[in-house]
Amino acid sequence: MNTPQPVDLLIAPQWIVPVVPRGLVLQEHALIIDAGHILDILPLADVRQRYLPRQSHHLPSQAVMPGLINLHTHAAMSLMRGLADDIALMPWLKEHIWPAEHAFVSEAFVNDGTLLACAEMIRGGTTCFADMYFYPMATASAVKQAGMRASLGLVVIDFPTGYAADADDYINKGLAARDALSGISTLSTIFAPHAPYTVGDRTFEKLLTFSGQLDLGIHVHLHETQAEITESVAQYGIRPLQRLANLGLLGPGLIAAHGVHLTQTEIELLAEHGCHIAHCPTSNLKLASGIAPVADLLTHAVNVGLGTDGAASNNRLDMFGEMRMAALLAKGASGNAEVLQAWRALEMATLNAAQALGLDGVIGSLEIGKAADLIAVDLSDVETQPCFDVVSHLVYAAGRSEVTHVWVEGRCLLSEGQLTTLDRREVLEKAKLWQKRLQAKSM
Amino acid sequence: MNTPQPVDLLIAPQWIVPVVPRGLVLQEHALIIDAGHILDILPLADVRQRYLPRQSHHLPSQAVMPGLINLHTHAAMSLMRGLADDIALMPWLKEHIWPAEHAFVSEAFVNDGTLLACAEMIRGGTTCFADMYFYPMATASAVKQAGMRASLGLVVIDFPTGYAADADDYINKGLAARDALSGISTLSTIFAPHAPYTVGDRTFEKLLTFSGQLDLGIHVHLHETQAEITESVAQYGIRPLQRLANLGLLGPGLIAAHGVHLTQTEIELLAEHGCHIAHCPTSNLKLASGIAPVADLLTHAVNVGLGTDGAASNNRLDMFGEMRMAALLAKGASGNAEVLQAWRALEMATLNAAQALGLDGVIGSLEIGKAADLIAVDLSDVETQPCFDVVSHLVYAAGRSEVTHVWVEGRCLLSEGQLTTLDRREVLEKAKLWQKRLQAKSM
Repeated sequence: MNTPQPVDLLIAPQWIVPVVPRGLVLQEHALIIDAGHILDILPLADVRQRYLPRQSHHLPSQAVMPGLINLHTHAAMSLMRGLADDIALMPWLKEHIWPAEHAFVSEAFVNDGTLLACAEMIRGGTTCFADMYFYPMATASAVKQAGMRASLGLVVIDFPTGYAADADDYINKGLAARDALSGISTLSTIFAPHAPYTVGDRTFEKLLTFSGQLDLGIHVHLHETQAEITESVAQYGIRPLQRLANLGLLGPGLIAAHGVHLTQTEIELLAEHGCHIAHCPTSNLKLASGIAPVADLLTHAVNVGLGTDGAASNNRLDMFGEMRMAALLAKGASGNAEVLQAWRALEMATLNAAQALGLDGVIGSLEIGKAADLIAVDLSDVETQPCFDVVSHLVYAAGRSEVTHVWVEGRCLLSEGQLTTLDRREVLEKAKLWQKRLQAKSM
Repeated sequence: MNTPQPVDLLIAPQWIVPVVPRGLVLQEHALIIDAGHILDILPLADVRQRYLPRQSHHLPSQAVMPGLINLHTHAAMSLMRGLADDIALMPWLKEHIWPAEHAFVSEAFVNDGTLLACAEMIRGGTTCFADMYFYPMATASAVKQAGMRASLGLVVIDFPTGYAADADDYINKGLAARDALSGISTLSTIFAPHAPYTVGDRTFEKLLTFSGQLDLGIHVHLHETQAEITESVAQYGIRPLQRLANLGLLGPGLIAAHGVHLTQTEIELLAEHGCHIAHCPTSNLKLASGIAPVADLLTHAVNVGLGTDGAASNNRLDMFGEMRMAALLAKGASGNAEVLQAWRALEMATLNAAQALGLDGVIGSLEIGKAADLIAVDLSDVETQPCFDVVSHLVYAAGRSEVTHVWVEGRCLLSEGQLTTLDRREVLEKAKLWQKRLQAKSM
């Protein structure tokens, strides 16, 4: 008999929901984590003879699953949570958000806002997010401090902001951030042209060239509102998606955020090119943008992940909430209760989002060799008892407040509900300071 | 100067959101509770000279608001939470819920299930619920133990169950329960004929007679699915609402649960007769029943409260979730972001539900003379900071996990997040026992 192998960490929960293979729920099993990766998943009874863990977590009332991936957010906008509600996207942007951003957004704002967002996301079981905001280096700094994983959007807009003067300036700053962050295993970058209505053809063409040369994906708002489509038809004679198609931008590197208004032809076009949708059901409802045709997208095998959008239009960065909302809304909107089942919503919030980010070799499921990005969810209290079906409970009954532990690359970011990498008081003090500044301006 | 008056309780939170008058948010104010009622709401600075509280709660990071009222639920069905998901109403009822009820529902089941539901509802800030289930005396027993307030539905169905043999038996058992419970300030009763598709005209006519004689309201499932309407047209030649109208059942005592499928004429009919809608947005989505025309109902001044429905079709008894869902869904479905604003959702979950139950003289807002049914919600943590607008946060950002204190008639049911009237372990042990029994049956 061999000597047991020393390893970093053993996690022994009541249930393991690995997401791959689909539908599997393991009991009496343990996860073995070493050097930030999943080294093994094996029956508890076999652990002792094979592994000698330096640390053990016995979680007798928890389900352990892959960390949730927020496929579309603007993390720093957490500082504008509840600043303006109950109005539609365009007045919300033009009369409230853009003026506030013009007055306040800076490296410090982005760093502090992202720290607040990371604190909220970690506590809610999110381990990775695809961000789209100004000053990606400030975002990166906060993400590193929090210990999370992120895909940082290199924002490009065809008008000047405090961050950059023109399209070339945005692109150059983005590429400089990409270079500065290369080699950090938890950070990746992606081009983030804001939207077809704020980015012209010339800029999209430049991004396409760089995208091909550097193997960088593109994350863009697309078909969020009917107005955006109507304006595009007036200005360009075609709908935005067709415009991107004509420019050659459609492909497996493209993440289209929202995709609320899509014709059958457009859904087929997305499927044909292997594009991804970041479905943000709560934000789409809140801004009255509409309800995305998720059932149709799934029927056509378009890959769909889930996102919260920013806290200014949600107003939570709560991926448990988005899973539940996505599953509920697809049923209600389609009239078919089977159209988006619990296990499917779980895949959308984990594996499918990883696929959209090109990270499905690294995260999105609990498989041997993947990074140890995982969370524990307590299902033992009155809100989640009795428990006939763990996956049903993770989607329909449990919520972010049931998350007890979070690990990224095997490092614990949340332990027994307590943040370990971030100083909660410091994060809150910074949020309060920004609140005062924003309030002083608006009064 | 007068001697300060001894009173039971002072509550001094950061904010008071009384719901009436609309839009008011008080700061630097206190609530004075005595003999189970709100004796005063006054500036903090004036308290000392006027009142001598025996107990004081200073809640420096909380908003205090009226307790939430769940206008439609089947509390005991919490024991069937997650038993069957991702299927439509009729197969869900006929293949899963009714067989399970047939095998298991008893006084003990209803008592234990209601205790579990009360524990969940109290922790989530719900102080009152309108129930509809078998064995109302068993429900009443659990509600009394929990210290909550409830409107107990006296169920009537035209087929036998373990609870009753025929319509007359249901009615007699209901009336006996009503007599036995009279005089308990926190309990009221209401006739609860299950639905037009399970109750015939003769039974409805009997209920109408008793309803008039005893001044008892009627709580009925109505127009939940399109199938129910199609069947009614086939069987009776008219839609269910018209059938109830012809029978003379429409009036201010009628609470119609769901109301998902309503024509303009039907909405006008509801408005004309002063009927109430118990809107259950999550359950309607989950069972793919559809999306109720809430914007139209509000335009026609139909009174709309919110309900969770049972935990078997939600799967949460979470009124914070329903408030948020109602506000979001009405916007997304109507394409108008202003159609159901945050303060309006708050009214629906409090005052409007109280009106539906005929209890708006007693609960639903924080006004002098009303019962002290109120809750405290902590808005100081990373999920709810910054805070520009308390009402927005209560609806869009906060959730049931932020509830710290709950009082009903001035009695504390939740203190610092801990249940005070119910033994959490005992409630959970009973839930586990029922889980085993239900699982043994279905395997």
